[in-house]
Amino acid sequence: MANTFGHLFRVTTWGESHGGGVGVVVDGCPPRLALTEADIQPDLDRRRPGQSRIVTPRQEADCVEILSGTFEGRTLGTPICLWVRNQDARPEAYSEMATKFRPSHADYTYQAKFGIRAWPGGGRTSARETIGRVAAGAIAKKLLRERCGVEVLGYVTQVQRIVAAVDPEIVTAAAVESNIVRCPDAAVAAKMIRLIERTRKAGDTVGGIVGGVARGVPPGWGEPVFDRLEADLAKAMLSLPASKGFDIGSGFGGVTMTGREHNDAFRMRGGRVRTTTNRSGGIQGGISNGETIYFRVAFKPVATVMHEQATVDVQLHNTTLKGRGRHDPCVLPRAVPMVEAMTALVLADHALRHKAQCE
Amino acid sequence: MANTFGHLFRVTTWGESHGGGVGVVVDGCPPRLALTEADIQPDLDRRRPGQSRIVTPRQEADCVEILSGTFEGRTLGTPICLWVRNQDARPEAYSEMATKFRPSHADYTYQAKFGIRAWPGGGRTSARETIGRVAAGAIAKKLLRERCGVEVLGYVTQVQRIVAAVDPEIVTAAAVESNIVRCPDAAVAAKMIRLIERTRKAGDTVGGIVGGVARGVPPGWGEPVFDRLEADLAKAMLSLPASKGFDIGSGFGGVTMTGREHNDAFRMRGGRVRTTTNRSGGIQGGISNGETIYFRVAFKPVATVMHEQATVDVQLHNTTLKGRGRHDPCVLPRAVPMVEAMTALVLADHALRHKAQCE
Amino acid sequence: MANTFGHLFRVTTWGESHGGGVGVVVDGCPPRLALTEADIQPDLDRRRPGQSRIVTPRQEADCVEILSGTFEGRTLGTPICLWVRNQDARPEAYSEMATKFRPSHADYTYQAKFGIRAWPGGGRTSARETIGRVAAGAIAKKLLRERCGVEVLGYVTQVQRIVAAVDPEIVTAAAVESNIVRCPDAAVAAKMIRLIERTRKAGDTVGGIVGGVARGVPPGWGEPVFDRLEADLAKAMLSLPASKGFDIGSGFGGVTMTGREHNDAFRMRGGRVRTTTNRSGGIQGGISNGETIYFRVAFKPVATVMHEQATVDVQLHNTTLKGRGRHDPCVLPRAVPMVEAMTALVLADHALRHKAQCE
Amino acid sequence: MANTFGHLFRVTTWGESHGGGVGVVVDGCPPRLALTEADIQPDLDRRRPGQSRIVTPRQEADCVEILSGTFEGRTLGTPICLWVRNQDARPEAYSEMATKFRPSHADYTYQAKFGIRAWPGGGRTSARETIGRVAAGAIAKKLLRERCGVEVLGYVTQVQRIVAAVDPEIVTAAAVESNIVRCPDAAVAAKMIRLIERTRKAGDTVGGIVGGVARGVPPGWGEPVFDRLEADLAKAMLSLPASKGFDIGSGFGGVTMTGREHNDAFRMRGGRVRTTTNRSGGIQGGISNGETIYFRVAFKPVATVMHEQATVDVQLHNTTLKGRGRHDPCVLPRAVPMVEAMTALVLADHALRHKAQCE
Repeated sequence: MANTFGHLFRVTTWGESHGGGVGVVVDGCPPRLALTEADIQPDLDRRRPGQSRIVTPRQEADCVEILSGTFEGRTLGTPICLWVRNQDARPEAYSEMATKFRPSHADYTYQAKFGIRAWPGGGRTSARETIGRVAAGAIAKKLLRERCGVEVLGYVTQVQRIVAAVDPEIVTAAAVESNIVRCPDAAVAAKMIRLIERTRKAGDTVGGIVGGVARGVPPGWGEPVFDRLEADLAKAMLSLPASKGFDIGSGFGGVTMTGREHNDAFRMRGGRVRTTTNRSGGIQGGISNGETIYFRVAFKPVATVMHEQATVDVQLHNTTLKGRGRHDPCVLPRAVPMVEAMTALVLADHALRHKAQCE
Repeated sequence: MANTFGHLFRVTTWGESHGGGVGVVVDGCPPRLALTEADIQPDLDRRRPGQSRIVTPRQEADCVEILSGTFEGRTLGTPICLWVRNQDARPEAYSEMATKFRPSHADYTYQAKFGIRAWPGGGRTSARETIGRVAAGAIAKKLLRERCGVEVLGYVTQVQRIVAAVDPEIVTAAAVESNIVRCPDAAVAAKMIRLIERTRKAGDTVGGIVGGVARGVPPGWGEPVFDRLEADLAKAMLSLPASKGFDIGSGFGGVTMTGREHNDAFRMRGGRVRTTTNRSGGIQGGISNGETIYFRVAFKPVATVMHEQATVDVQLHNTTLKGRGRHDPCVLPRAVPMVEAMTALVLADHALRHKAQCE
Repeated sequence: MANTFGHLFRVTTWGESHGGGVGVVVDGCPPRLALTEADIQPDLDRRRPGQSRIVTPRQEADCVEILSGTFEGRTLGTPICLWVRNQDARPEAYSEMATKFRPSHADYTYQAKFGIRAWPGGGRTSARETIGRVAAGAIAKKLLRERCGVEVLGYVTQVQRIVAAVDPEIVTAAAVESNIVRCPDAAVAAKMIRLIERTRKAGDTVGGIVGGVARGVPPGWGEPVFDRLEADLAKAMLSLPASKGFDIGSGFGGVTMTGREHNDAFRMRGGRVRTTTNRSGGIQGGISNGETIYFRVAFKPVATVMHEQATVDVQLHNTTLKGRGRHDPCVLPRAVPMVEAMTALVLADHALRHKAQCE
Repeated sequence: MANTFGHLFRVTTWGESHGGGVGVVVDGCPPRLALTEADIQPDLDRRRPGQSRIVTPRQEADCVEILSGTFEGRTLGTPICLWVRNQDARPEAYSEMATKFRPSHADYTYQAKFGIRAWPGGGRTSARETIGRVAAGAIAKKLLRERCGVEVLGYVTQVQRIVAAVDPEIVTAAAVESNIVRCPDAAVAAKMIRLIERTRKAGDTVGGIVGGVARGVPPGWGEPVFDRLEADLAKAMLSLPASKGFDIGSGFGGVTMTGREHNDAFRMRGGRVRTTTNRSGGIQGGISNGETIYFRVAFKPVATVMHEQATVDVQLHNTTLKGRGRHDPCVLPRAVPMVEAMTALVLADHALRHKAQCE
């Protein structure tokens, strides 16, 4: 189950950084959805390295192939296997990884858990694993958009200490994609880009915050108790590499308010039950209330830096390790499609669950 | 699945605020663990209303009965059903709840989802549901303590703007339990208690942050990809009523650091691989690294306030609603055992999973 | 997961023969189904010991209580916990069970697996565990009947070598319930009853075959590959105590036919695609085709006999054991409601799954 | 979940008859198991068409590629994706399948369920789907053999009315593989082969029974209640294409015995608890007792025959259909590795489950 996410719209990713490739099996996608590689490739292009000067310069084409589950351009209701072949494998570039645990990476913990690890490129710990998620998420996004009228969107809202104010009600995909850092506020984006470039030149890295939003979710999706919509979103986000935190609606900031200030009053509007504020973030008691769902995900700075760091080798001796060659100064622009994908996977699953039980 | 948590150590809660009672079935607890009601009741006492002057004054004894799964004081390896009978049912106290949706509660979303709801006491949306979690968590805590040497602990670290500095490496259960707000810093605790009392008198509520810690987790627990330890913790915490955020290790604060500053260097210490700092929060790549696991959970202020608020009734007319009688000015002291319980449920599950695959 | 069945209509049974009772949690039952104890008790009465002279004379009232999940006589969409208190506990009657493994019972294997067992009354291995299944099945049957127009029925079709010819298309509940052996062929039933009475007097037991039928299942329920409808039915039936075999449609008998003889031709009838024969048993490729689903379940003779048998004690010495007091000469009449229950649980689950993905 | 089997050793098959290929993702295989394609290919060769004159003459090489989950010839503990490219795709040979439902195939039910189907070669309903199972089963067999000392074996025990007496305690793989029908009794095998050849020439097909055996399973595997070992085996077997029945131990034949005759007496032998007979088939109360596990699976005759049959087309008109070209007169020789694979998948899963809870 470790590599599977979702109950009814259910994805299983597979693959290591080096080897035959990476991919995903999507089981439970409803039949008769129009689907070709062209629906999936754009999000992979948003995720891939080398897309701009502020991300890692690795050149990976990441071309997706649909191996199963469609016929004449439509889904069959059977498992959809998506595959991206590995390229640009340069094991020599990583040879020290065979013998030394990279600080704040998963080399040591994989070794401790499994007693074996595929060290080239980080193996399964590589961010290449997220290719499968983003590919599956593209299908989920399409399903949500076409069958439920739900739009999912991510954006960068903070890089280190540079913060953008983004209104989840009105932010557009066009604004997000208008610059390479994927921050919809152009002026702030320019500052972020400069910071990332400076950081890259210094051989260092920066973290920040990605915002996520889902608009058009009808009231009633989600479940009480454990599979609350916000709980599944939290799990989805904390399952992304380098993520360290999640909050929804008023989030951590809301703890400074009193109950009177914080509560969202209900009012009828347009014939529907609406809230006059949205501190709940579109979810109450684990179930969507029809308002916009919005949340934040904290990403730590990427662990690979171009400086010598203390570490331990596989013979358990103290040593040092210095990153070489290419590094990724900021994961945030590439994390945006990952956040969107995981959001869509959660929502597609709950859309089907709601249908099963309550429609 | 909505009411079930965990794969191998697996709990299903059931029950509404009014009616036959609330409870939980624990499936997958290993056999031959000494277990009686006396192992469970103390955590229920820490969770129950009426335990101090700063929580809701509802008087609920919340006595647990073991209905199955033990024999002569030891677990059988078969499902353990725990039951707490409902008392203090006063439907008349809630009669407005039959017809009006309480703001920032789950009344409206349950109605939207299920087309029916048990309005007395909030039914399934009541915090009474967490009785089952806390009871099951007490078993998980015992299993972790006795079979794995793992200690789980929660504490209040912030009430509104009053912040306590708590060191997760050394905080003790005794310090947490030394005051009614469950903040291990006595001086800060006193301030918190005064704030909560003032708030209660004002008919208002406050939120804050609960810290959680797990010490003694060996390297190797957790899973790569989706079922990362921090992902399961995030889901567990966001599944608690009134929680709005989760972060682990450096968390949201870590985004202002650079990679060089943030990385945890590995060093050999005491013959083991250790980190010199612990910004990772004891988990790297989803798998425990042997360091202390620590995290934070944000809780919004309780929604029920003693003031008139705008809302909508079940006939979809605008109206107002004012809380009556008893209210809970701050959920945090009672949230501490809930956070502990959910932490223990996550860890017990992963302990068994690790054993299955990798030992 | 060991004690849970189903994915969307999902039941978890709990309880031992002695102790607080036995029960079940039903999670995933759709909301707003009318449900009271009166809907469940009749099937428990059909299952209980002491109901006639040909079953075990244990006197158990087996009164069900709904502890959660309903409000004002309707389901809430939240977990339904059903409980039957234990009575007639006479541990002394079983005292040899504490030290000797009963042949062809599960005493030894439980001990081998768990290193502990609740020996009074067989603990969890007791057929009392099926109370939870039958109670949950009564809910599933009601759901299927009222929301899907599906009728589920079981009957005894063979006792030892006495065989009844039952037509699954026309057999009625009234015919099944018209005699105490639950064989719809009255003449054959009389012979079966005489055989069982003779067997009981001889202190011995007999086995036989229970037939199951589901009428009105629309085309399209079930899944390709692993969760085929017949695969889930097979699992459901082989999970019943004392069952040793399952076949569907032409079953084991069909292996003597050729393909030309065995194939079910399609013909249009009444505007629908129908088959002219039904050797497929209503399922093709794992998915219902709209014809009547029918199958058989083989039950071995009950293991407890009133004769001395060779066995081993818990100190691993050879010894002998003789059943004392009451014994059940034939499980078949009581197995009928169990087969119905498990059939209904499978179908209710697939009804919801089909709705989620394909409607 | 429809395409996934197992909880801890967990396989998901994917792929259609035509298209990119067929495959499987194996999640949960323990790390550090030596594994290359050479461990898997032999079972695929036993499964593939064209292997002898008594099976379908389709020429399919079915070469397996490991796309992920191993490193330097050992498993990583991460998902193992196995892929077999499709070849021999001749859609024109099937063109009538586009418009007519083949009798006793799954064309109609897929159409009814999904509203779409990949008709070339039967799409997902093709027996090619079992390639993934057999490939995954080869891994499970290796794991069981090397880490648990468990041997899994299948064989043909009946073709139409020709029955072989096979002793599950002593049958060997060499005897099974000594002839093309995979019946370990050479004399009976010769008769079976002649029958199948005659049947093929007549354009017809025959069914029969495959026996399965697992030797060396220690006491304690399996679970009480729903996930009984025999229940999971039953599901596994009934999930195979064309299977119509399953029984274990004394099975359907055991219903004619009395309890005194049927019970397996316990005796100490070689310092272990043993049974003097094995009518239980190695499982009691759902849990292995250390004796040999043996069971039977009934397979109907293959549906595709070279004769005109009545059917219905996709416009819902009556019509006829006649199989053309190649047909498979008897699925049994190729079903043997499928039965072995499914047996191994069940046992590997329970081996890990037992370890998690009870070791």
